[in-house]
Amino acid sequence: MRPFTNLIPFEEAKRILMENVKPIERVEEIDILHSLHRVLAEDVISPINVPPFSRAAEDGYAVRAQDTFGAGTYNPKELIIVEEINTGEFKEIEIKNGECVKISTGAILPKNADAVVRVEDTEEENGKIKVYRAVHPGFDVAPRGEDIKKGEKILEMGTFLTPPKIGSLAAIGISKVKVYSRPKVAILPSGDELQKPGEQLKPGKIYDVNTYTISSIVKENGGEPVLFSYVRDEKKDIERKLKEALKYDVVVFSGGSSVGDRDILIDVVSKYAKVLFHGVQIKPGKPTWCAVGEKLIFGMPGFPTSCLSDSYQFLAPAIRKMARLPPKEEKIVKAKMARRITSTLGRMQFFTVRIKDGYAYPVYKTSGAITSMAYSDGYIIIPANVDLVEKDEEVEVHLWSFEG
Amino acid sequence: MRPFTNLIPFEEAKRILMENVKPIERVEEIDILHSLHRVLAEDVISPINVPPFSRAAEDGYAVRAQDTFGAGTYNPKELIIVEEINTGEFKEIEIKNGECVKISTGAILPKNADAVVRVEDTEEENGKIKVYRAVHPGFDVAPRGEDIKKGEKILEMGTFLTPPKIGSLAAIGISKVKVYSRPKVAILPSGDELQKPGEQLKPGKIYDVNTYTISSIVKENGGEPVLFSYVRDEKKDIERKLKEALKYDVVVFSGGSSVGDRDILIDVVSKYAKVLFHGVQIKPGKPTWCAVGEKLIFGMPGFPTSCLSDSYQFLAPAIRKMARLPPKEEKIVKAKMARRITSTLGRMQFFTVRIKDGYAYPVYKTSGAITSMAYSDGYIIIPANVDLVEKDEEVEVHLWSFEG
Repeated sequence: MRPFTNLIPFEEAKRILMENVKPIERVEEIDILHSLHRVLAEDVISPINVPPFSRAAEDGYAVRAQDTFGAGTYNPKELIIVEEINTGEFKEIEIKNGECVKISTGAILPKNADAVVRVEDTEEENGKIKVYRAVHPGFDVAPRGEDIKKGEKILEMGTFLTPPKIGSLAAIGISKVKVYSRPKVAILPSGDELQKPGEQLKPGKIYDVNTYTISSIVKENGGEPVLFSYVRDEKKDIERKLKEALKYDVVVFSGGSSVGDRDILIDVVSKYAKVLFHGVQIKPGKPTWCAVGEKLIFGMPGFPTSCLSDSYQFLAPAIRKMARLPPKEEKIVKAKMARRITSTLGRMQFFTVRIKDGYAYPVYKTSGAITSMAYSDGYIIIPANVDLVEKDEEVEVHLWSFEG
Repeated sequence: MRPFTNLIPFEEAKRILMENVKPIERVEEIDILHSLHRVLAEDVISPINVPPFSRAAEDGYAVRAQDTFGAGTYNPKELIIVEEINTGEFKEIEIKNGECVKISTGAILPKNADAVVRVEDTEEENGKIKVYRAVHPGFDVAPRGEDIKKGEKILEMGTFLTPPKIGSLAAIGISKVKVYSRPKVAILPSGDELQKPGEQLKPGKIYDVNTYTISSIVKENGGEPVLFSYVRDEKKDIERKLKEALKYDVVVFSGGSSVGDRDILIDVVSKYAKVLFHGVQIKPGKPTWCAVGEKLIFGMPGFPTSCLSDSYQFLAPAIRKMARLPPKEEKIVKAKMARRITSTLGRMQFFTVRIKDGYAYPVYKTSGAITSMAYSDGYIIIPANVDLVEKDEEVEVHLWSFEG
C-alpha cells in the first residue's frame, strides 16, 4: 500500500487539471431543431436578404408616397385600387400615378410603390380609396435586407445557441448547422461489490450509485455519458476496459474501494497516461486522481458522496471547457450556521447543509453516505486551516443546481 | 377589422394567464438514467437498509474492540487472523476472543466483530497481527442502515431530480421512478407566406422562424414541442388543425400576419375556449392573445421578435408552472445606456440591447427583425409611462439564458 505522499491543495489540483483540458475539435452537422444549447463550429454568413423583398409592415394600401402629399382629414386624396396582394403571394405589378394596391402585412410591395397607407387612414368605396393622411417614402415599408443583408455574418463560430440565435438561422433558411461534438465520457465504476439498481441484492453486495450520479453530472454539463459494465478489481479487466474506454474523450473510473485496488488501477493507467495528481487536500474526495495522455482520465473514489463531490468540483468544469460552455455560474446564498461544526485541519471541506429559515443545518454524515448529498441544498467551504465553525456564524452556501 | 379595445397592462395579462395554468397531473414511469431534471410524482420509501449490512469503513482488520483495549505503540496486542473478507464477498464467519479477520473497505463485517483496526496501526506476521492502537466499539464501522433506514422516506413527491437525488434512488436499488409528464406543446405557425428553412425560397415567401424559436423556448423550460404543418389563413384549416392540436396540453398559434387573419383565428378558437385577453400594452408583442378551455391556447404575433418576446414573457413561465419547475431565476446586470433611446408611451417596452464594456447598446430594430433578438444579450424594461432613456442613464439588463 502506498501512502498519499503528494496530497496537493484543491486550487492547485484544479489549476493543473484545467490547464490540461482541451476543447473538443470534432464537429458534427445537426438540424437546427436539435441545436438548442449547442456550440456553433462555423461562422454563419447569410445567403439571402431578410426580408428577401421590400414588404408592407402593416395592412393597408401600397402607394407612391408623392400621391398622398397634402392629404388630411378634411382633404383626402383619391386613389384607384388596381390589384390586391396577400401575404405570400407573388404578382408582377407596377403602379402608376393615382393608383394603389390593397396589401396585407408582410406582402411583397408592387413596383413603383414606396410607402403603405394604413387601413385606418383610408376609406374604401367602389374600387377607390380616400387617403386621409399623407405618408413619406418608406412609411410602413420593411425594405429588402432591413433585418439581415445578404453576405452578412450573422453568427460567429463558438456561439452558444439560444432560442433567438436559432431563430436567426431559420430566418436565413439554414436548416442544418455545424456544431462542436459533445464530449463523450466513459464511465467505469469498479468493484466486485456492485450491483445494478433494479436487481435483487445479494449478500455482501451494494447498489451502484456512481454510474447514475456521474452520468447525470456529465449530462448537466453538456457531455454524453457512455456506460460500461463494472470493472473487476484485477489488472486484466482494468486494462481491457481502459483500452475500450480510451476511444472516448474522457474516462472516469470510480473505486476500487480499497487502497490496494486503487494502486492496481493507477499502475495500469500510468502505462497510457501521465498522472497529474493523486490525492487532494479536500474532504470528501481526498483519494481522487487525474491523468492525461491522449485522453483525460479521472479516478474518483468509490464512496458515493466523495465521487459526487469530486465530479462537481473537477469533472463538471473539465467537461464544460471541453464542450466550450461558459463556467457554470455559482449560486451562493448567505445563511447562519444552525449549530457548531468541526472540520479536519489540513483538508478543505465541502460540508453539505440544508437551508431552512435562513439557517444552514448540517447534513454531512460520512463520505460513504449518499444522503450527505441527497438531503442537502448545497455546501459550505471550510478552509483547510479552519477546524471549527461556530453556531450563528454567517456562512456562504453554494447551492446545487436546481433549475431545469 | 376589430380594434384592440381591451389592451391590458403586462402585469395583469401575466397574472390572469398564470391563474389559469394548472400543473400537469399525468404521470409516467422512467428509468433513473433518464430522470435528470424531471419532477418526482411519488414519495419514495426505501425498501432496504443502506448499507444493507455493517461494513468496514477502512482497509484493516475486523476485531472485537475489547481485544484491543490497552494497546499502544510500545504495548501491542496480538490477534490471530482467521479469515480474509474482500469487498463484495459474503462469508459466514464468526470471530472469537483473540481473533480477527482481514477486511477491505466496504466488506461485510464478520459476526461478533464490532470495530476495524486500520492497516497502518498494525503489523502482520505469520498469520498474526500486532495492534498498536486501541479502538472503541463502532470504530471505522459503517453500521447497517447508517445512510438510509429501511422504510425511510428518502424523496418527496414534487422533488426536482438533481444528480445527488438520482444517486439516492440508485442507492436503494430503484431503477425506475414515476415522474410528472412534460407538458406537450403543439406549435402551429399560420401564414401562406411561410416556407421551411432548407427549401429554395419562392418569390413572395419568407422562412418560418417561429417554429424554431417557440420549440426552443418550450424545450428550455421543460416542455416537449409537437410540430404542426403551417396553418392556412382560412377557417376550415384552422379548425381542423386546432382540433388535432387540442390533444396536447398547450396550443400555440403564431400569425396570421394580418389583422383580418387574426380575427378568423380568434373566432374559431372562441368556439373551444374562453379568451382571457387579446392585446397587451407591451412592445414588441402587443397583438398577443390567450384563451383557456380544456387546454391553454396562445395566439402569438407572426413577427419573429414579437413572437419570441411573448414566448419568453408568457409561454415560458406557463410551461414551467405546468412542468412544476421553479420560476426561472432572472439574471440581471447593470449597465449604462450607450445612447439616448425613445420608447412608445402607453406600452411597456422590452428593449433589446447588447452589452460591451459596461454599456448597453440598442439592438432593437423592428418587431419583424429577428436580429432585434439574435444580436442582443438581453433587454431593458422601459415602463409604459416613460418615453425616453437618456445616454449614460443606469439601466438593468435582463440577460437571456446562456448556460447549458
